[in-house]
Amino acid sequence: MTPDALSDLDIAHRLADAARAAILPWFRRDGLSAENKAASGFDPVTAADRAAEEAMRRLLADLRPEDGVLGEEFARAEGTSGRTWVLDPIDGTRGFLSGTPTWGVLIALADAGGPLLGMIDQPYIGERFTGGNGIAEMQGPHGQRPLRTRDTATLSEAILFSTFPEVGTPADRAGFESVAREVRLTRYGMDCYAYALVAAGQIDLVIEAGLQPYDVMAPIALIEAAGGRVTNWRGEPAHDGGQVLACANAALHAQALDLLRPFAA
Amino acid sequence: MTPDALSDLDIAHRLADAARAAILPWFRRDGLSAENKAASGFDPVTAADRAAEEAMRRLLADLRPEDGVLGEEFARAEGTSGRTWVLDPIDGTRGFLSGTPTWGVLIALADAGGPLLGMIDQPYIGERFTGGNGIAEMQGPHGQRPLRTRDTATLSEAILFSTFPEVGTPADRAGFESVAREVRLTRYGMDCYAYALVAAGQIDLVIEAGLQPYDVMAPIALIEAAGGRVTNWRGEPAHDGGQVLACANAALHAQALDLLRPFAA
Repeated sequence: MTPDALSDLDIAHRLADAARAAILPWFRRDGLSAENKAASGFDPVTAADRAAEEAMRRLLADLRPEDGVLGEEFARAEGTSGRTWVLDPIDGTRGFLSGTPTWGVLIALADAGGPLLGMIDQPYIGERFTGGNGIAEMQGPHGQRPLRTRDTATLSEAILFSTFPEVGTPADRAGFESVAREVRLTRYGMDCYAYALVAAGQIDLVIEAGLQPYDVMAPIALIEAAGGRVTNWRGEPAHDGGQVLACANAALHAQALDLLRPFAA
Repeated sequence: MTPDALSDLDIAHRLADAARAAILPWFRRDGLSAENKAASGFDPVTAADRAAEEAMRRLLADLRPEDGVLGEEFARAEGTSGRTWVLDPIDGTRGFLSGTPTWGVLIALADAGGPLLGMIDQPYIGERFTGGNGIAEMQGPHGQRPLRTRDTATLSEAILFSTFPEVGTPADRAGFESVAREVRLTRYGMDCYAYALVAAGQIDLVIEAGLQPYDVMAPIALIEAAGGRVTNWRGEPAHDGGQVLACANAALHAQALDLLRPFAA
């Protein structure tokens, strides 16, 4: 096929395939090196992270030269189409370095209005969650299935995830805990995989803070395509990152937002 | 093969295969039912949990009638051999109900001295970690590899996991935090999978409390076969459960134990 014959969804799958191939040789490899991006704190960048973003950028330069690219690891590439591919080659680098199977490759296509298409890929399990352009589906080790969020009606029945209990600033944590106090179950440690679980109808809420656009673009498109709702803690679009509230449905979103608003940055 | 020709390891694989077949149809199934085992708190028992233990018990009644069986779901079966199969069909039921791929089937063979053989199986990923009888290996979606714990020398370089930040009683939590303050990275949410990551040389420490024998027998055999050390917070054998410290090596174990001893129950 010529590049023009490839749909945006085809491109996203090719990007995810390329990222898988670049990353898997590094996963659980002995002597994995890590650098500290920030002097204070533990934010490793692995060779896998860079190799995957380079592989995806090469594909886009070839197949979609008119689109922009915003990635975690390298400088922004401006396009002429008004559309941007937003890439986080390894979301959950701490999980990656720990060998957990809950990090993921995040791929989104966005325009000025926000994300159009989002994909969360877990290369080790071989699981891919895709949403947007009328599609909401997953492929995994046990086949393909549609994605649909849950209809849980109240926080008291809901399952809430966040990546780590500190959440962010003390105010971020206090906001998170105001919701955590009301839910049936709170769990940690899943990185982007938690958003995939919302889209898959397994859990009800993800609340995080301090996110970057490349952390949240793909989850927004995925969850909204599956029937959920994602905003910041003011109820506004969340695609610029920051404090994020991802919910299985509008009713839960309204209940959680009431609790989070006082803590909105 | 006649039952006598099957090694203990063969039996363990057959049990894990039977558990996988019983559990997978229930994983991420819509409308999964949950019961509360304890009136206070959230401890679901799924149909999968019971179906898997029944399947394993049927196999053992057929293949190892002389051995005892201790499982989470049903009454203890006494044997005549002095050996007991210790089964936790789904360790991490909260993770299971949330759709995470970090719960597991725990299978151990023990005698009066403790566990001889241990297996952690993750059916959804198709990953199996086995240790004991001179073997320490894993099989997963990307092949087979030997298991060997890490040689991390100090807590300041170590990665620590626990299932949830509350850990247990306030004293359990204080003990955990006395170690968490010293390590490079603390993560939550992996259930039994964290012990598999110690055996696989990916992380350095797991500290938990309030465990049952069926929670810890398989992790002990697995981690010790891979070169690690597992005790309670007094430095004694941990196979009766309670407060558990699992370490990649003896040096880390000594450092963590110094910090945990004041909080030992």
